Amino acid sequence: MAVSRPGGRTARVRADVLRAAGDLVAERGFAQLDLAEVARRAEVGRTTVYRRWGTAIALVTDLLLDMAEQSSPRADTGDLAEDLRANARLVQRTLADERQGALFKAVIAAATWDEQAATALRGFYRTRVDEWAPCVVAAIDRGELPAGSDAKAVIRAVSAPLYYELLITGQVPDEPAADRAAHAAFLAARAGAFVEARPARSS
Amino acid sequence: MAVSRPGGRTARVRADVLRAAGDLVAERGFAQLDLAEVARRAEVGRTTVYRRWGTAIALVTDLLLDMAEQSSPRADTGDLAEDLRANARLVQRTLADERQGALFKAVIAAATWDEQAATALRGFYRTRVDEWAPCVVAAIDRGELPAGSDAKAVIRAVSAPLYYELLITGQVPDEPAADRAAHAAFLAARAGAFVEARPARSS
Repeated sequence: MAVSRPGGRTARVRADVLRAAGDLVAERGFAQLDLAEVARRAEVGRTTVYRRWGTAIALVTDLLLDMAEQSSPRADTGDLAEDLRANARLVQRTLADERQGALFKAVIAAATWDEQAATALRGFYRTRVDEWAPCVVAAIDRGELPAGSDAKAVIRAVSAPLYYELLITGQVPDEPAADRAAHAAFLAARAGAFVEARPARSS
Repeated sequence: MAVSRPGGRTARVRADVLRAAGDLVAERGFAQLDLAEVARRAEVGRTTVYRRWGTAIALVTDLLLDMAEQSSPRADTGDLAEDLRANARLVQRTLADERQGALFKAVIAAATWDEQAATALRGFYRTRVDEWAPCVVAAIDRGELPAGSDAKAVIRAVSAPLYYELLITGQVPDEPAADRAAHAAFLAARAGAFVEARPARSS
């Protein structure tokens, strides 16, 4: 997706470097990411890349931060079932996209053995879950969901089956899978599945 | 878990080799699995290992097959919510187990780039889902779930949030997480989330 970015040369250099890094991770996996090759592909001075990012993991962390920032804002249709479907379809399109899907698989695999990759990945999902959780909060305020429902848990529940398909069942999720995931999370949430347990209060 | 196995020397050799292979994958990941080292650890002749398994992936496939066969049979309490909780806790204990958790993470990571590892992984989950799906079928027969519910989809829905925690959120799921996953899948299923869409029939 072409995104026009504000800022001058510095912003353009970052965009070029992150695009090259993303391409390389998607093509060969995280373990093969070499900063000199990123610089060559991005047509940016090697010193610039080493000075600004320094390590492959710093580059991937910045790439995921950028993707989290550039990714679509939450829906706000006034209907939670619709909002969750929009969220599920966004996740599904990302995982089904050839380049982004490969990138995520590479980073998720790396996160199983590399603590810094895991931290970068968690940062990405925290940003995305924080972006979408207000849909659920609004639905609670409208009385669509029981009070005390954990908004972030609802958003994570939409994604979980799609990642399970991708990583465990080994299928790239399609749009009907996204709709099923959203629908299941919605029905579970409405039935009170994500109401946070809290200790009974005396008095 | 110590399991007494029937069969003589051949079965003992298989058990020893699979144990050594599982240890090595858990320690160092799938990419580092070396048949000669497996033979050394298992105190089994190298020729036997090469003749019987031949490749690292054949060994891991057999290891997952063995784990699927040795894993606990389905619960049958007469109450779907209980059965799903038993399933979730079994998955959670496996993922939280130091050796088995590391083994699964290694094979899941390998499955993102290695088609044979992906096939082995899919075989494991197919066996486990087939083992547990009859709980859901029985619940449909008892009228606990709507007719037409996809039994395997319900079982997969129990596991999905636990794998999401392990791989994406980067937390080893605990027993309350297992209970929440089972409860959410149960509520969604009861509300009809897994009823298979089918074309309307005329006449």
